Amino acid sequence: MNTYSATVTVRLKSGVLDPEAETTKRALERLGFELDALRSVDQFELELPAESESAAAETVTEMAERLLANPTLHDYDVTVERR
Amino acid sequence: MNTYSATVTVRLKSGVLDPEAETTKRALERLGFELDALRSVDQFELELPAESESAAAETVTEMAERLLANPTLHDYDVTVERR
Repeated sequence: MNTYSATVTVRLKSGVLDPEAETTKRALERLGFELDALRSVDQFELELPAESESAAAETVTEMAERLLANPTLHDYDVTVERR
Repeated sequence: MNTYSATVTVRLKSGVLDPEAETTKRALERLGFELDALRSVDQFELELPAESESAAAETVTEMAERLLANPTLHDYDVTVERR
């Protein structure tokens, strides 16, 4: 078994409202910053044992499907590299 | 003025407890997944007007210092690219 590092990036699907990001954008504007858009993204950095890079990617995709992302609201990407 | 895309990645400093990540890790373990570590990271994806890439990076670093990150708890990275 090797150890792999994986990153799961979870974003709201386009069209889903993100009031937290909207609030952060307005707070920055109140501080005098000018910005066209702000989007917040959740990332999970994992370390896990697996037989191969493809086995690690499969496991992490299953973690995303079952717990880390909500497929109704979120899109997600998985990247894996050997440590 | 050009438009730039910037990403601010905010991580808890090492040694700062992250009970949310600990709970997520335990929930994955209860689902039968084996993992050595899980860290959660916040990312902000911004679009902003600026005179140059370095001016955009300076503005976004100031946003991170003033609002997006708490320097007592967090480390952050800023990346900028022209759209």
